[in-house]
Amino acid sequence: MTATEKNHPLVVELTKHLPAGAVVTDPDLLASFERDSASLCDFHLPLAAVVPSTENEVRTAITLAAAHRVPVVPQGALTGLAGAANSVRGGIVLNTRRLNRIRHIDPANRVAVVEPGVSNKELREAAAEHGLTYRPEPSSWESSTIGGNIATDAGGLCCVKYGVTRRFVRGLRVVLADGRITAIGRSTIKGVAGLSLTDLFVGSEGTLGIITEATVALDTPAEAPLTLAATFHEATDAGRAVAAVRARGMTPSLFELVDRTTLRAIDAHARMGLGDAGALLIAQSDSGTGAGQELDIIAEACHEADAIDVVVGEDPAESEQLIQARRLAHPALEALGPLLVDDVAVPVSELAWIIGEIEALAQRAGLTIGVVGHAGDGNLHPAVVVDPTNPSSLEAAHRAINDIVDLALSVGGTVTGEHGIGLLKVPMLERELDPVAADLQRQIKELFDPHYLLNPGKVMTAPAVNE
Amino acid sequence: MTATEKNHPLVVELTKHLPAGAVVTDPDLLASFERDSASLCDFHLPLAAVVPSTENEVRTAITLAAAHRVPVVPQGALTGLAGAANSVRGGIVLNTRRLNRIRHIDPANRVAVVEPGVSNKELREAAAEHGLTYRPEPSSWESSTIGGNIATDAGGLCCVKYGVTRRFVRGLRVVLADGRITAIGRSTIKGVAGLSLTDLFVGSEGTLGIITEATVALDTPAEAPLTLAATFHEATDAGRAVAAVRARGMTPSLFELVDRTTLRAIDAHARMGLGDAGALLIAQSDSGTGAGQELDIIAEACHEADAIDVVVGEDPAESEQLIQARRLAHPALEALGPLLVDDVAVPVSELAWIIGEIEALAQRAGLTIGVVGHAGDGNLHPAVVVDPTNPSSLEAAHRAINDIVDLALSVGGTVTGEHGIGLLKVPMLERELDPVAADLQRQIKELFDPHYLLNPGKVMTAPAVNE
Repeated sequence: MTATEKNHPLVVELTKHLPAGAVVTDPDLLASFERDSASLCDFHLPLAAVVPSTENEVRTAITLAAAHRVPVVPQGALTGLAGAANSVRGGIVLNTRRLNRIRHIDPANRVAVVEPGVSNKELREAAAEHGLTYRPEPSSWESSTIGGNIATDAGGLCCVKYGVTRRFVRGLRVVLADGRITAIGRSTIKGVAGLSLTDLFVGSEGTLGIITEATVALDTPAEAPLTLAATFHEATDAGRAVAAVRARGMTPSLFELVDRTTLRAIDAHARMGLGDAGALLIAQSDSGTGAGQELDIIAEACHEADAIDVVVGEDPAESEQLIQARRLAHPALEALGPLLVDDVAVPVSELAWIIGEIEALAQRAGLTIGVVGHAGDGNLHPAVVVDPTNPSSLEAAHRAINDIVDLALSVGGTVTGEHGIGLLKVPMLERELDPVAADLQRQIKELFDPHYLLNPGKVMTAPAVNE
Repeated sequence: MTATEKNHPLVVELTKHLPAGAVVTDPDLLASFERDSASLCDFHLPLAAVVPSTENEVRTAITLAAAHRVPVVPQGALTGLAGAANSVRGGIVLNTRRLNRIRHIDPANRVAVVEPGVSNKELREAAAEHGLTYRPEPSSWESSTIGGNIATDAGGLCCVKYGVTRRFVRGLRVVLADGRITAIGRSTIKGVAGLSLTDLFVGSEGTLGIITEATVALDTPAEAPLTLAATFHEATDAGRAVAAVRARGMTPSLFELVDRTTLRAIDAHARMGLGDAGALLIAQSDSGTGAGQELDIIAEACHEADAIDVVVGEDPAESEQLIQARRLAHPALEALGPLLVDDVAVPVSELAWIIGEIEALAQRAGLTIGVVGHAGDGNLHPAVVVDPTNPSSLEAAHRAINDIVDLALSVGGTVTGEHGIGLLKVPMLERELDPVAADLQRQIKELFDPHYLLNPGKVMTAPAVNE
């Protein structure tokens, strides 16, 4: 950090008004606040990182930043995949990691009240002490925070059966851009008192306010799942199996698809003998005594769709083995090079089609694009391998992501199924939104944050005059 | 209608610009557009009722009304219970009953695209032709419309297991207060592209815009349910049974509680031999082959909570008999006099407590208050019997509702679990909302409808200067 930054009037005031340790200015430490887990997105060294321990400290930081018109980027565990938590030029970051108290667990009413920096894992463990669980389980659950999960409406592998984060958020406390504090939502199961401000904050990616407390629903845990793995010659066959399972009214608790390119990468990485298959489908059932029967029906659907091979794990240990290939997908692709990870969702019926199109696109562009998909809900993560030694490779990867987004939009899909807009998809958001809807979103943003101080440049950009 | 009203410049223009039959001005016919199903709420004869058949006609009506600064009250089937659809002084109503096309059913992706005037029953029947169903099932499902269901985020008996309307709404088309048309939301299962405007409209009670089309999720139907009915000496015993069922991780597909006062009314009305019981609990399971086992567990919980009697229906016919008492609750209470029906929700653990408090309150006030509750989600409908021959009776009933709302709020409950604010609860909304949250709600309302032309006086009132 240069002397200029340390002497920035906001940094001076933050240091003065906040407890020791709540303001990080050491450049070496600051580097760890620069960016989330999205590769290849823009980021900057922040002026300072504020790490508040109380809501009041959040308010102090926001009020001071507002007075100085300095941007604030809210952060959780930095596991996001769209650059939403990346620090912006001339701004500070406000990291919630120390707001990590579990305030209250009410087993009778199955709710938990937690601060935003509590990790998904910590909440899950605290709920387990009462024989309960917190359902939403994004892949980052071991480290990602509840605040971040809510800000991005996090999905994951389990939401095919249980729904995404939104469904479990009852109420929030937030610090607004002008430093006002408000409590929104409710703690009861049902409630329709006025507009749902809580739903407006879920998925708002830190652009409307800073979440300082969340009331979330807990649930009784499911049984340990049993797993089925089926290989297919072609993704279209796997797509037919998915459709057949759904047509039978069955909702697996996990339903994942791995494409040919990713299978080859996994094979190269871990020699699992999957290299010849065109697609791998993995399904789980957590229906306890009914699980075996559910997997039998799924197995039948796979055989009818000309599966090469169908294996059913007879117990949790075997089941865990069968899901290994899915877990290795990301590391195996990453072994090939830095990844630009996309996140589109399409109607489930278009799953096989878009995988075929992405394969053709990769061939035409001379790119390696591995696709892992949440087959049960039509959410795909094409990962483009970038060649760091070739400067045009990143550009080609961005072009490919662009094309994949267009493919998704052409069949009624969305530019982001669960990772959010962040920085990565800002140019694409308005391709999806109706212009009037985009206008309304911007007006709501400006109502909450007229000077675009909260996470500026994320989700939607300010009109040119404000920038 | 007086000549003045028929010659009101807006009515003249509406008649000129809309097709024959789309504008109702005959006072006898207009009377049927005056009010919804809430008793004892204020209403007025509208200047005219617009009954559009197309989105474009909606836009024409809204644009003309805006130009004349005449209020517009959106209406569906008028089954609402909070006066939200009641016509206001000097305004027109816009009734969606002719916007009743089912545009599209996509069985592979389990979505339906419908106009707002399609009834819940019609959508359910259309879905059934594809082996699917539309889950949300408010008590009014035979006549209430999808538009109305969405505008009120309708609940009902089944939502204890499947969730309320919000969970099934993916996207909307709306005509805004200034006549602009926009499409919001998505049709995919998952999606996080920007702020959730759809969730803002769900439950907004016609205050933000007119819904002209909805994309909703369909589902595979459940099995025909089996029913259990248990009587208890006291509501607190029933409350313990509810808690025990929940503690075992079981979610019945219906879980209803009927209090002592209502049981006496039912007995007087239909002689079902329930008059001695202090509470009736009815549970259903739609888990097919697992239903019997689920009801056994619920029966055990009831016995442990000192149930007087527990009966399990062995088949759908017997089950239907057991649920009769619940169905008769409202007619039986209505036989005693006009009802002021309340709708609070409390944490489930407070259910038995609040029923006891309401009983005490009724005794103190010399009122008859029957309580029927969605026990599984803590949502109660205390119904105060009003004596039409005694002018002070209505006032006493309103006071009782007020007191019940305060009881609910004192334990973290909400002033409305599923009926909405409408007219009935306007004075109570801001007792629940944090002042900053109330301010934000009003600012969002004003962003969408700066002149308070859409359903004015409902949910939240305009600041005095605008009235």
